[in-house]
Amino acid sequence: MTADGTCESDVPAEVVQLFLSSARAACDPVLRRAVESMPEPLATMAGYHLGWWDIDRSALAGSSGTFVRAALVWAAAAACGGDAGNAAPIAAAVELVHSGTLLHDDVMAGEVTRGGRRAVWSIWGIDNAILLGDALQTAAIRTLTDLPDPGVAVRAVMRLETSCLDLCIGRFEDCAFECGQAGPVDSYERMAAGKTAALIGCCCGLGALAADAGDATIAALERFGRELGLAFQCVNDLGRRNATLTVAAALNSRSDAAIEPAALCHSGSFMATGDIDRAATLVDVAAGRHAEQRCADQRIQATVAALPDAVRSRDLIALSQLICRRER
Amino acid sequence: MTADGTCESDVPAEVVQLFLSSARAACDPVLRRAVESMPEPLATMAGYHLGWWDIDRSALAGSSGTFVRAALVWAAAAACGGDAGNAAPIAAAVELVHSGTLLHDDVMAGEVTRGGRRAVWSIWGIDNAILLGDALQTAAIRTLTDLPDPGVAVRAVMRLETSCLDLCIGRFEDCAFECGQAGPVDSYERMAAGKTAALIGCCCGLGALAADAGDATIAALERFGRELGLAFQCVNDLGRRNATLTVAAALNSRSDAAIEPAALCHSGSFMATGDIDRAATLVDVAAGRHAEQRCADQRIQATVAALPDAVRSRDLIALSQLICRRER
Repeated sequence: MTADGTCESDVPAEVVQLFLSSARAACDPVLRRAVESMPEPLATMAGYHLGWWDIDRSALAGSSGTFVRAALVWAAAAACGGDAGNAAPIAAAVELVHSGTLLHDDVMAGEVTRGGRRAVWSIWGIDNAILLGDALQTAAIRTLTDLPDPGVAVRAVMRLETSCLDLCIGRFEDCAFECGQAGPVDSYERMAAGKTAALIGCCCGLGALAADAGDATIAALERFGRELGLAFQCVNDLGRRNATLTVAAALNSRSDAAIEPAALCHSGSFMATGDIDRAATLVDVAAGRHAEQRCADQRIQATVAALPDAVRSRDLIALSQLICRRER
Repeated sequence: MTADGTCESDVPAEVVQLFLSSARAACDPVLRRAVESMPEPLATMAGYHLGWWDIDRSALAGSSGTFVRAALVWAAAAACGGDAGNAAPIAAAVELVHSGTLLHDDVMAGEVTRGGRRAVWSIWGIDNAILLGDALQTAAIRTLTDLPDPGVAVRAVMRLETSCLDLCIGRFEDCAFECGQAGPVDSYERMAAGKTAALIGCCCGLGALAADAGDATIAALERFGRELGLAFQCVNDLGRRNATLTVAAALNSRSDAAIEPAALCHSGSFMATGDIDRAATLVDVAAGRHAEQRCADQRIQATVAALPDAVRSRDLIALSQLICRRER
């Protein structure tokens, strides 16, 4: 962090990418086993959704998604001095839960694409997308039951399922939020907390659990992850039509400049790039973006000091910085 | 069982009802805690779906559902000499999983009613029904993590999630079956095994696990439950348009009488009562119903002998008899 409280990365991007790659290499076999143990056609659909192959199972060039949640489990375990034994199935489980949630979200939102590719429901139909979402959720928890220590396994299941329930209510509130007016900042935060912060908080807490950390450390890592999740949500929402914290803050400012972004926000269609730039400029004027950046930075700053070990937490902090900037 | 292999109940219906009531009384508090720990509006929607109250939370007269799966856990635990401590959360968990599955099934099938009441999605919308299905699945597994012995808890989670994955593929095959032609008997059985037998088998296996039974006994109870599930599915499908084992058997018989039920079956609408009677008569002629009844009875007969203790298994056998007759 810099003196003025904004995030300033001191870890080169290459180092973060290297960390992401090594986390992926460790989790990928567990994830593949979980998916390939599914009966067909669920396995083919799941691998398509995870970006491993195309509709006909032909290999895809390029990487598949950012793998941020799995990497956070990994980094949090490392921050607490844990080894990879427990972290791999836990990291795979959070990716599976997240993937299942996205499947159902795409059905609910009627999104025909995801990450530039056709959404599963638009290829295999809504019924199959609902079923695959259920199956991925199931595969996630089943992966946790393979952990060697039943005590750790049960606590991991309980934590992950608790965050899934928070996720459900956050998604419910997100739907309500999109249908309604821009709410006040605190109602936005409640929605964001459920939708994103619960699972990202859970990832960090689970990483600590994987490292066999004590309850206080697990709680500190979970708090850190929740704040990171709120920051992530803050910077991730501007390109979407729905009323964001940015816009909520701008609207709350009651300045004249808030009128046009509010109109764009409620225009009923996703913004074109030009609209986004224009809205972003207007929102900057209304102090929205500043509030958003300040929100993200202050949240991270407040919890990073509570991390157990500065040296071991290096990758976790670098990942957080990656996550909390829009240009990542 | 009688000498000719058909099921003949030797336990009065009142005794079975008494058993069902006592199982319900024991599980209900756990189920209520699980639902009421959900945030609103999920709790209200869940209680409506479970038949506890109406849309506005006004109490409903009459009982809510048959509670068969929870009762099977209970009866299987009793058959293995277990007490109620572990059985209650496990029984609640299977009811929650089953309820979540039904929610998603109603969305997928576009069924506007369930048990004579409006389906959740037709009141609160498809998005909320999908979310509530996810939440009930989550609440089910979380309930299992409350079991006092982590070893039992992890094995219970693993068994329940494994059956959920079987359930997903069974539901996938059910959709394919409804869209296509009447398949051969073995393809029907594979679908039924996934759709119903997996969870009912799991209930009986989990009951044994709750009673701290050994692996061999757990496996025997699970096998018993799977056969019971197949029998249940056999006798439960005649009122539906989709091609059932009955019809599949009739069609396989290649008799002239098979032509009309096949036409009714693929007519694209649910059968009216007259149609059902007519189809049933025709199918009887084609020996379909006989095959169905024989299938149900033989399956139960083959596994009931493997139950651990005839006296302790009395309620389990009575429940099976209740389940495997159409006039229940």
